[in-house]
Amino acid sequence: MKFKARVYVTLRPSVLDPAGTAVQSALTQMDFAVESVRIGKYIEMVLDAEDEKDADAKLNLACDRLLTNPVIEDYCFELDEARSNPSN
Amino acid sequence: MKFKARVYVTLRPSVLDPAGTAVQSALTQMDFAVESVRIGKYIEMVLDAEDEKDADAKLNLACDRLLTNPVIEDYCFELDEARSNPSN
Repeated sequence: MKFKARVYVTLRPSVLDPAGTAVQSALTQMDFAVESVRIGKYIEMVLDAEDEKDADAKLNLACDRLLTNPVIEDYCFELDEARSNPSN
Repeated sequence: MKFKARVYVTLRPSVLDPAGTAVQSALTQMDFAVESVRIGKYIEMVLDAEDEKDADAKLNLACDRLLTNPVIEDYCFELDEARSNPSN
C-alpha cells in the first residue's frame, strides 16, 4: 500500500530561530503586527508500507535517523492512504 | 485579536527539488521504499488583526511579498484564534 505523509519539523521552543527573527523584523517594517515567527520544514513524501501501523513505524524511524535533528527539532506527521492516480 | 497562522510553502510541481531527491536517495539506501520526497517550509506565526478576514488578507499579502517566491512556490495557510495564554 502507498501512503502519503506530511511531516512537520519545527525547532524546539528553547532553540533560537534567527531566520524567524529576521522574517519577523522584516514583516514589522512592512507594517504587519507580528508577535512571533518560527520557521520549520514541511516534507511531503509517498511511501510504500504494509499497513498504516507499518507506515507509522517507518516514518518515525526515518524522522529520527535522517529527517530531523532530535537535539534541536521536534516533528509530527500525518498519514493518508495515497490515491492510486493522484491528480496533484 | 491575535491569530495563530500555520503557513505551508511548497515548490510548484513543475520545479525540481534537488534536496528532496537527495533525501529520497538516502532513504532508499536505508531500505525505506519511498516514491517521492518534496521539501518545503513550514512557518508558524502569531499576528494581530481585527478579525479573521483581516488576518487572512494580511497573511496573503505577507506570503506574496515576503514569505514565498510566487514564481516557483505555492502556499496555503491555516488560521486559528490564538489562546490568550498559550501553553506552547
